[in-house]
Amino acid sequence: MMPRPEINGERLLARLDLFAAVGATPGGGVNRQALTVGDREARSLLTRLAKARGFSVFQDDAANLFIRMEGRDGSLPPLLIGSHLDSQPSGGRFDGALGTLTAFEVLESLADAAFEPDRPVEVVAWTNEEGCRFAPGCMGSRAFVEGKVPAEWEGLRATDDGSRFNDDRLATIEALAPEIGHRRLGFPVAAYLELHIEQGPSLESAEIPVGIVTGVQGTRWLEVLFEGQTAHAGTTALQFRRDPLKALTRGLAALYETVMPEKDDARFTVGRIAVTPGSVNAIPATASCTIDLRHPDTFVLDQLEEDIRTQLAGAAETESVSFFIRKTVDMAPVTFSEDVVAALQAAARTAGFKTRSMISGAFHDALFLAGHAPSAMIFVPCRDGLSHNEAEYVKPEDSVAGARMFLASVLELLS
Amino acid sequence: MMPRPEINGERLLARLDLFAAVGATPGGGVNRQALTVGDREARSLLTRLAKARGFSVFQDDAANLFIRMEGRDGSLPPLLIGSHLDSQPSGGRFDGALGTLTAFEVLESLADAAFEPDRPVEVVAWTNEEGCRFAPGCMGSRAFVEGKVPAEWEGLRATDDGSRFNDDRLATIEALAPEIGHRRLGFPVAAYLELHIEQGPSLESAEIPVGIVTGVQGTRWLEVLFEGQTAHAGTTALQFRRDPLKALTRGLAALYETVMPEKDDARFTVGRIAVTPGSVNAIPATASCTIDLRHPDTFVLDQLEEDIRTQLAGAAETESVSFFIRKTVDMAPVTFSEDVVAALQAAARTAGFKTRSMISGAFHDALFLAGHAPSAMIFVPCRDGLSHNEAEYVKPEDSVAGARMFLASVLELLS
Repeated sequence: MMPRPEINGERLLARLDLFAAVGATPGGGVNRQALTVGDREARSLLTRLAKARGFSVFQDDAANLFIRMEGRDGSLPPLLIGSHLDSQPSGGRFDGALGTLTAFEVLESLADAAFEPDRPVEVVAWTNEEGCRFAPGCMGSRAFVEGKVPAEWEGLRATDDGSRFNDDRLATIEALAPEIGHRRLGFPVAAYLELHIEQGPSLESAEIPVGIVTGVQGTRWLEVLFEGQTAHAGTTALQFRRDPLKALTRGLAALYETVMPEKDDARFTVGRIAVTPGSVNAIPATASCTIDLRHPDTFVLDQLEEDIRTQLAGAAETESVSFFIRKTVDMAPVTFSEDVVAALQAAARTAGFKTRSMISGAFHDALFLAGHAPSAMIFVPCRDGLSHNEAEYVKPEDSVAGARMFLASVLELLS
Repeated sequence: MMPRPEINGERLLARLDLFAAVGATPGGGVNRQALTVGDREARSLLTRLAKARGFSVFQDDAANLFIRMEGRDGSLPPLLIGSHLDSQPSGGRFDGALGTLTAFEVLESLADAAFEPDRPVEVVAWTNEEGCRFAPGCMGSRAFVEGKVPAEWEGLRATDDGSRFNDDRLATIEALAPEIGHRRLGFPVAAYLELHIEQGPSLESAEIPVGIVTGVQGTRWLEVLFEGQTAHAGTTALQFRRDPLKALTRGLAALYETVMPEKDDARFTVGRIAVTPGSVNAIPATASCTIDLRHPDTFVLDQLEEDIRTQLAGAAETESVSFFIRKTVDMAPVTFSEDVVAALQAAARTAGFKTRSMISGAFHDALFLAGHAPSAMIFVPCRDGLSHNEAEYVKPEDSVAGARMFLASVLELLS
């Protein structure tokens, strides 16, 4: 009888340290933005580790990296597990890397136990999940699901050094091409499973080590613009003012009081605000802001968006300013596969993990994969919910517990 | 008997056109920022016109330009009349120039009539009233009243080309030095009178051609900073948020509803607002804004500032964010000389002008001169109250009426 596969916690933690050194920042985080030298170094390191264990390695035209453990029947679609290796410019060492290295640890633990799965198991590191150097995020998983790299990305320019997406994509592929195989985008997948840090505080504050993610919130981004009339701050009496910032603060103050307090699952965030001309002693000519609105339910999203439009239009009318609103992102909520979620719940029972079912507030590659194969995610707690930050931190025992839960889930999905 | 001095309206309007061509912008305005080539060209043009009429011309160490008509007793302090020739980068052709050229027209009309005043009359063009290229504004009149160029200005850098204030000041002085005399800063002045466009809409909307300015509002500038905690827009539930922009909009919305509506003479303006890190999908870490607060009464200003501090501190506390506020400008209200104001009222009665007594909402050089000599101002209407804008416009008949009122006032002050 084969030994039961077991996570090697020390190996996983050592690997996290190893990858944290790639693109390390002085503040203890990492800067491995997509398709930069740091990102390529991380891909190369993972490739070397994989080949040293005898796994075959492939990449597709979106530079997604695949590490394959063969199954008894190599013609079956693989079980795909993984996450991403790219980071924010001042990113943490766990966002993406923890999920990718956990998936690789699972592959190694299967190999340690000489476990031979019925179908192939593949680890994937998706290209440009973060979307900060080239927008949009999740480019690798989007392209994979579409089956091609969208033509409109070809000429995109990087926000940091202005280099072209297509040049960086091809250079990244060419750097590894001599050593690894080529895969076509969008090959069939049996199921997709991803582990990620929660990037929120709920698991930590409830002291629950594992979140079973049953779906991803819908997200809408709105751009709001109020246009009034600039005028001298000292000479213009109230009745002559058409102040767009007054209208905007009035509208936003009302929305802050209603959107989230009334709908517990809603998320309403104004991340950018600006005025022109931006002079201390001039009434602004324009005031603008962004709104990030999320909710797990499309119907509620529709309602909330309508409320926002009505509230802001009313504030504009009251202040006699013009009002424009534009939707720049509309991502429908996704409900993950009931079968995969049930497998995760069964795995948690078997392995004895306390879990919480939850909706992901953030985008992940799994959101896109869910359109291609039955998918779900596992969350682990991170300190203070902090992410996209050099201070991002996951307790070693939580990383190892997450990996054990992930292994149990993979075994459940393979059974 | 000498002919009574009369304004030559055509000459004044032609002069306005002539100076509007100096630093003219494609949009019909002017760019004659302080101590630039355009500003020097305007000084040089006025000097040529003055010398052609036989007036003597002087400048002081702050590059303030003086044109002197001798009086019967040249040892008496002069009556000083004028304004400024510098402009905003996209300024209008009347702001400053109308007052300077009106004062020069008055000098010419006195000379046309061979009028010999008891005391000298001098036209002044103050240096850098606008304060946009080098802050603070009203440098020329400030230095004049202080009797020296403050040492802390020497190293100031221009906002446009980074050149040093002291270099530009000396170069401007040197350009005219061979042709004109030198005056010491802060010589005694009998009285100071300045004409300016209102830069607000009240005279135009009441169809009154002349405003008699009895004082200048007090102005306070506040810088407000709220510090919270940045976090992921999608994953952070309401109870975990410490959103500084929520606190700021709540505080501002309340202040917009109270400050100006409750105090008719108050002016409350937020001209700048910003958040960091400024990412669509991140709760801001900080939110900041400026506040420009004005009122003619120091006691009310104190009250309003206290209200603002209390209201904002309360909003910060409600949202559990830190709150900082700093006062960067505190200019006390100024009440102009009762004697000079009475002379203007008498002049208006004699000349048959309908007038309105008013408080200036904006700073002017007269605000500083009031600390040195009895001072007051005359306002003329401008279209839509628009100023600091290429579209700034004064009807020809209003320019000429203002000059007639100004001449009548000068004659009253000389009598």
